[in-house]
Amino acid sequence: MTQSVNELMEQIGAQARKASTYIMQASDEQKSTALRFMAQRLLENADYLKTENAKDLENARNNNLEPALLDRLTLSDKAIHLMATGLNQIAAMADPVGSLSATRVLPNGINIAQMRVPLGVIGIIYESRPNVTIDAAALCLKSGNATILRGGSEAFHSNLALGNIIREGLAHAGLPETVVQVVSTTDRAAVGKLITMTEYVDVIIPRGGKNLIKRLSEEARVPLIKHLDGNCHIYIDQYADLEKAFQLALQAKTFRYGICGAMETLLVHAAIAQEVLPRLAQAYAEHQVELRGCEKTRTFIPDAKPATEEDWDTEYLGPILAIRVVDNLEQAIEHIARHSSGHTESIITERIHEATLFQRQVDSSSVYVNLPTIFADGFEYGLGAEIGISTNRLHTRGPVGLEGLTTYKWVLNGNGQLRK
Amino acid sequence: MTQSVNELMEQIGAQARKASTYIMQASDEQKSTALRFMAQRLLENADYLKTENAKDLENARNNNLEPALLDRLTLSDKAIHLMATGLNQIAAMADPVGSLSATRVLPNGINIAQMRVPLGVIGIIYESRPNVTIDAAALCLKSGNATILRGGSEAFHSNLALGNIIREGLAHAGLPETVVQVVSTTDRAAVGKLITMTEYVDVIIPRGGKNLIKRLSEEARVPLIKHLDGNCHIYIDQYADLEKAFQLALQAKTFRYGICGAMETLLVHAAIAQEVLPRLAQAYAEHQVELRGCEKTRTFIPDAKPATEEDWDTEYLGPILAIRVVDNLEQAIEHIARHSSGHTESIITERIHEATLFQRQVDSSSVYVNLPTIFADGFEYGLGAEIGISTNRLHTRGPVGLEGLTTYKWVLNGNGQLRK
Repeated sequence: MTQSVNELMEQIGAQARKASTYIMQASDEQKSTALRFMAQRLLENADYLKTENAKDLENARNNNLEPALLDRLTLSDKAIHLMATGLNQIAAMADPVGSLSATRVLPNGINIAQMRVPLGVIGIIYESRPNVTIDAAALCLKSGNATILRGGSEAFHSNLALGNIIREGLAHAGLPETVVQVVSTTDRAAVGKLITMTEYVDVIIPRGGKNLIKRLSEEARVPLIKHLDGNCHIYIDQYADLEKAFQLALQAKTFRYGICGAMETLLVHAAIAQEVLPRLAQAYAEHQVELRGCEKTRTFIPDAKPATEEDWDTEYLGPILAIRVVDNLEQAIEHIARHSSGHTESIITERIHEATLFQRQVDSSSVYVNLPTIFADGFEYGLGAEIGISTNRLHTRGPVGLEGLTTYKWVLNGNGQLRK
Repeated sequence: MTQSVNELMEQIGAQARKASTYIMQASDEQKSTALRFMAQRLLENADYLKTENAKDLENARNNNLEPALLDRLTLSDKAIHLMATGLNQIAAMADPVGSLSATRVLPNGINIAQMRVPLGVIGIIYESRPNVTIDAAALCLKSGNATILRGGSEAFHSNLALGNIIREGLAHAGLPETVVQVVSTTDRAAVGKLITMTEYVDVIIPRGGKNLIKRLSEEARVPLIKHLDGNCHIYIDQYADLEKAFQLALQAKTFRYGICGAMETLLVHAAIAQEVLPRLAQAYAEHQVELRGCEKTRTFIPDAKPATEEDWDTEYLGPILAIRVVDNLEQAIEHIARHSSGHTESIITERIHEATLFQRQVDSSSVYVNLPTIFADGFEYGLGAEIGISTNRLHTRGPVGLEGLTTYKWVLNGNGQLRK
């Protein structure tokens, strides 16, 4: 059995590598035509998609899947419309492939530039949400990459049905159907093979929980563009506009608890803690947010539970907030250096000196001034759409849009120059 | 024994991580002062360096090291001067850290940009040349990274002596001496530990032969910026200026046989093969270059040996050249797609159509028009200096200068905007 899964994945890999040489050269017109046709066929096939999805939902109910997961798994009319809208939006985006940057003329007259080119073959490994099948395939296709999609077994029928729609779009635009392949086995060995086929796969983008990503990080030989924790901080400086600070700190926690940009620890300068903390505590209480504070915090918010060392390192992804009162900016930066996961942090201050120091010294993928951390999102950054948020240091950092799915090659144009 | 090597490497790693937080924030003035002082101390300590180097040379002779390797290992006065000059050149380069790119104002008034920041901690693993100790340390320091250097055992005393000079420079500029650490053990287990300490090391740059790099690729958990083969091609199109083609093809092979940009296979359009090949064959014969050709090639160059399938895949790094006559541009591009290592290729043509098609379709890290492949070099690209040439697809491709040793963070400046 494992043997035949390996063979299947080898075949998929070889087909993807071959398809990537076609899609790398495809015109934007071809790629956009494929995406728009997929959008049309999604809407026309809503009943088919819901029928296939119903099989997954029934299995999920039989397996007593949690209601939240059932909700993510469901392909409602609304979900189908959102996917179609997303496809049309991505079709309309500017194609990065072939654009030149860093163009210069060298002293010997050679023209030099960097040309954007696709990464090649991208593997996407994801969990229950079937819409990832469409969103990820669309971004990879637009940026000229071949894609291998490996969704969760709980969305098996939904993903295959969406894969059929994708193939229709590719064929309609005259592109090879192997440009996007949905892995048609739920055998876990397929993942193990996918993340080690370095000859066929250039990068793996996992979309899922921490356990998935940790396991893949340990076993992969193919490079990952990965998202680990989002333990995000806001520091309210002594020179903050306190009304602004109140609004930002409130929204950063309560906008949506489950997103990676949600604030998990609030740091407050001692000089303004008395003005800030009781008012914030009341607002958080109205949202049923549980507060866990350091000793000083608890002098201002007596109801707060004592925070432990573990709290500073925790991404709650829920209605809990850790709060620490610090003596100065340096202590805030130190706290972040020790406990942050390097995702997104923000300082609230009106002073240039503190803002600049914070933004230069904090080594996270996004560092804000006077903004809530929940802006960490590809749409908000003007990237149009995102395939995820990278916590890597290399290649691409923060929200990853089309450009993060490309690399470059050097192009040099001469007229017979020789080396000296 | 292995236990204590692991402990040593853990200590070095922890110190490098700590030092990286200092050097990340250091001013260009501090970094350049350190580099210039190292240059001065190198020259003042030439006798000390040569004494330490003599110990390595004696060991090498006792171990019957090849003359070419002995040559690479030798720290002559000239080699010491070259290192000092290199340090002063790197000191004078523009510091990429802190510069902003992709700056925009978003519709909601938020200012967004990407700020260049150091990668963090870089491990360099290299073989016999001790000058890498200085060159690599200097580039990593200038770009704000902490560095762990692991040279070959045959250069042990030389590398430690150069490490002492580096420490003097760091101390002179008020920087922690742990910003650059030379690993003081020749135990091979140190390498195994270095390439798996993901908590302390952000990237490994190997400088050495293919065997070293293949072994590291298989065992590393830390990302590598690596250089594999340089199987480079020149294609002489039917619309080439034949005099230009002659000069370029001759220099691309004979400039220096051992460099990765040296041409290893020459592809020639059938329509001009008769005019091009006999003349080139005579010139190559004057340089004692052995020719291996396809059947058609041998009708024009009867002395050429028959080329085998293996020849198309071989990076000779020596006075051997494979030659194939092709029917058209498409066949040349196909040959390159199948056999190239993705390093550097060039087309010789006077026509825009052929030049554009070649440059768009060939998927190598550098693609030239009317230039010899030996331009693949950081100095020639205007990067000032290079730490190596990357054959990776991700992060950095082709010659790697200071910018390749950095990454970016997103910086957003707002005035209290909330998410909608």
